Amino acid sequence: MNVPLHGDDAAPATRPNLPENAPDDAPDDALDTAALVSASADLLDDLRAQAPLVQVVTNSVVTNVTANVLLALGASPAMCDVPGEAGPFARVADGLLVNLGTPHAEQRAAALEAATAAREAGTPWVLDPVAVGSLPVRTQLAHALLAHRPTVVRGNASEVLALAGAGAGGRGVDTTDTPEAALPAARRLAADAGSVVAVSGPVDVVTDGDRVVRVHTGHPLLTRMTGGGCALGAVMAAFAGVARRTGRTPAQAALAATVAYTLAAERAARAARGPGSFAVALLDELDRLRGEDVRHRARVSAGAVVVPALEAEDAR
Amino acid sequence: MNVPLHGDDAAPATRPNLPENAPDDAPDDALDTAALVSASADLLDDLRAQAPLVQVVTNSVVTNVTANVLLALGASPAMCDVPGEAGPFARVADGLLVNLGTPHAEQRAAALEAATAAREAGTPWVLDPVAVGSLPVRTQLAHALLAHRPTVVRGNASEVLALAGAGAGGRGVDTTDTPEAALPAARRLAADAGSVVAVSGPVDVVTDGDRVVRVHTGHPLLTRMTGGGCALGAVMAAFAGVARRTGRTPAQAALAATVAYTLAAERAARAARGPGSFAVALLDELDRLRGEDVRHRARVSAGAVVVPALEAEDAR
Amino acid sequence: MNVPLHGDDAAPATRPNLPENAPDDAPDDALDTAALVSASADLLDDLRAQAPLVQVVTNSVVTNVTANVLLALGASPAMCDVPGEAGPFARVADGLLVNLGTPHAEQRAAALEAATAAREAGTPWVLDPVAVGSLPVRTQLAHALLAHRPTVVRGNASEVLALAGAGAGGRGVDTTDTPEAALPAARRLAADAGSVVAVSGPVDVVTDGDRVVRVHTGHPLLTRMTGGGCALGAVMAAFAGVARRTGRTPAQAALAATVAYTLAAERAARAARGPGSFAVALLDELDRLRGEDVRHRARVSAGAVVVPALEAEDAR
Repeated sequence: MNVPLHGDDAAPATRPNLPENAPDDAPDDALDTAALVSASADLLDDLRAQAPLVQVVTNSVVTNVTANVLLALGASPAMCDVPGEAGPFARVADGLLVNLGTPHAEQRAAALEAATAAREAGTPWVLDPVAVGSLPVRTQLAHALLAHRPTVVRGNASEVLALAGAGAGGRGVDTTDTPEAALPAARRLAADAGSVVAVSGPVDVVTDGDRVVRVHTGHPLLTRMTGGGCALGAVMAAFAGVARRTGRTPAQAALAATVAYTLAAERAARAARGPGSFAVALLDELDRLRGEDVRHRARVSAGAVVVPALEAEDAR
Repeated sequence: MNVPLHGDDAAPATRPNLPENAPDDAPDDALDTAALVSASADLLDDLRAQAPLVQVVTNSVVTNVTANVLLALGASPAMCDVPGEAGPFARVADGLLVNLGTPHAEQRAAALEAATAAREAGTPWVLDPVAVGSLPVRTQLAHALLAHRPTVVRGNASEVLALAGAGAGGRGVDTTDTPEAALPAARRLAADAGSVVAVSGPVDVVTDGDRVVRVHTGHPLLTRMTGGGCALGAVMAAFAGVARRTGRTPAQAALAATVAYTLAAERAARAARGPGSFAVALLDELDRLRGEDVRHRARVSAGAVVVPALEAEDAR
Repeated sequence: MNVPLHGDDAAPATRPNLPENAPDDAPDDALDTAALVSASADLLDDLRAQAPLVQVVTNSVVTNVTANVLLALGASPAMCDVPGEAGPFARVADGLLVNLGTPHAEQRAAALEAATAAREAGTPWVLDPVAVGSLPVRTQLAHALLAHRPTVVRGNASEVLALAGAGAGGRGVDTTDTPEAALPAARRLAADAGSVVAVSGPVDVVTDGDRVVRVHTGHPLLTRMTGGGCALGAVMAAFAGVARRTGRTPAQAALAATVAYTLAAERAARAARGPGSFAVALLDELDRLRGEDVRHRARVSAGAVVVPALEAEDAR
């Protein structure tokens, strides 16, 4: 594996980086993505071996599916979201997800407590700013949480645009924007918050601000089951915990999570009659997925964030 | 489609009506039900085309299945139940469900906020008074919510009896009464609250106070999965949103929701080994159901509410 | 059925006992376990006939699966966990579960209210002290609840050790200890709280402090779905309600619950492709399970708690 690896603790900058050995031009891109896929495969196998403890502060709709997704992957979920417990737990957890889907008062306090502790303890944590923008309570909370520098920000395009101040947010959990359209906002967000930004969509994108990786696996049925996106945030927290222990970057963790999750979804869709059987099959496939599957079946492409269309946007 | 259609906004009375073109005697009933079925079929196809945004304020047990049922039907669920967000959201949502299954303090505040905003903005909303009667917190809340004139009240017979002041409520979510026995209470409730009242049971009934429609599709397995009834309330909110946009009545929305949901349940039961596989198949069947299926397979019957057995009750 | 039966109300001591007719030596053990299995089979059939009303105060992750497990067994679940309702409900419910997985403030108040009322009214209740030990909020609550003398305490080995003051608890919901290692702690806990103690693991154990019964059915997939353990607590509350009505002991209820649940799990695992399809099949199998299945397929063994390894522990 010829990918330069450095944990976020070891890195001089707070911004975790995607591999920099590949130039921005196309010819070397194949090599670059092969290394990214290889690292993703290794991370999945490491996750099963290490069974990271993942603290989940998430919305009331997806707690069950989120825990089941983590269990299927071999992680150990703990929905610890009570003030007075959330902070101490974030210090010992391997990773933390804070999802803002149903931000009741106690959970808001627990989210801030956990994020503060995670930052202090070096626990990698993922912020999923569900439906930020038009809804005031979560939007205010999201900005307060950004100050604690999430390791990864994961959302759909509208949420990333809204969080970066470039959009008004979608209507609820919907998105009317594409990940590509959100790339400039994602880049700014990555730079401002020192976070990796992962944007879900037909083609998922992961960026550390400098480079972008696109994940081409997945299936539309993921949007037809509730928690399809939210659970991915928890998977990212699990992978980020493993990456930290094994000296890999958060960007690679976010990528590996997306690759594994969307690949399992693709396989689940083959056996599914509809969204009900898809959700069941997704857990079965996550359980069966191994690094070898990722190595042979992942479809990713990489490039620099700065492409012509974005330069114009940046010039404004 | 020869059903006289009028939205609740356009109607001079606040009480949304079922079609009145069919006389109360039997001979014309066949025509009447054919029109009702046809409107239900159209509403289902309209729902898939419009993807209504449905705000859900519901109990902690059924959030997941409720969201999945809405997604399977093609609606867009948003569990927005935080004070400060619930009201603003109800103004932009296409429909709202308020379910009282686990009425914690913040959710009670959010429910009132959402119902108030829904009434002001004209957003159709559904009240599901789970287990009202003997339990004091939700019973008080249910009566406060009734003042905001829900578009539809949906419950089992015991809940409707209790809400109308005619019974003590069931024990928890159980019902020991039949929808037919609850019809006089449903009629009074419809008149008092200006709501359509839908009562679930072996044969579901929907009434606007003047007329009653019975839905004969369905399956007992719906009572063996949690959320089997609660999710129907959310489906009614989705249909009510579509009905409002397309100039149909809330009563037709409640009917169409019941017909589509119970028909999908009937189909799901065929493939099910038990309640676990039934719940999965229900989502798959809701996903596959089209207006054409409703047109050919719905089994409904219609009549006036005032039948001999009820006249005696009314005379008291 | 030659098992001496006495309800916890009728018993002179507050500690409900396992059958005492079998001496501690091996020869009569076969007879003893046959009687235990027979009583378990009868209790399952009684449960389906009586449809006990089970109040559930549990964590936000497992509400749905817990309700579905109860429904599949033929019980009637009611997630009544709002202060002002939880107490009154506990007086009329047949059984109560208090699970500490996500102990938010209102739920803590409701848990105490329900446990107090249950004790006063004689409603059997089950305490599941999820992740007690290192997490302060729930640990304090667990000890406060113990004062209300739960009928059954159900947990994994780490939780039982922590609650008995003999361990620091696991990391979250994990356990790093075995039920056998927790037996001395379980025995003390049973004596101190007057409770039956049930410890989940590869071999589950149930003890009333004097005797121990081991259940050898089950499947590791139960640990790969969220709620696999938590739902068993609710099942114990259902069985305890039926046992009380039929003059059997809480220990027999805890045993019957464990036997039925793990037997259904064993059968579900045969048809499962992974944890997703397992969770679905578990509900189907719980629905199909009858006393006859328990009678022919249960695998339990019985003995005294005091075995050489434990005597040494007791001597400290």
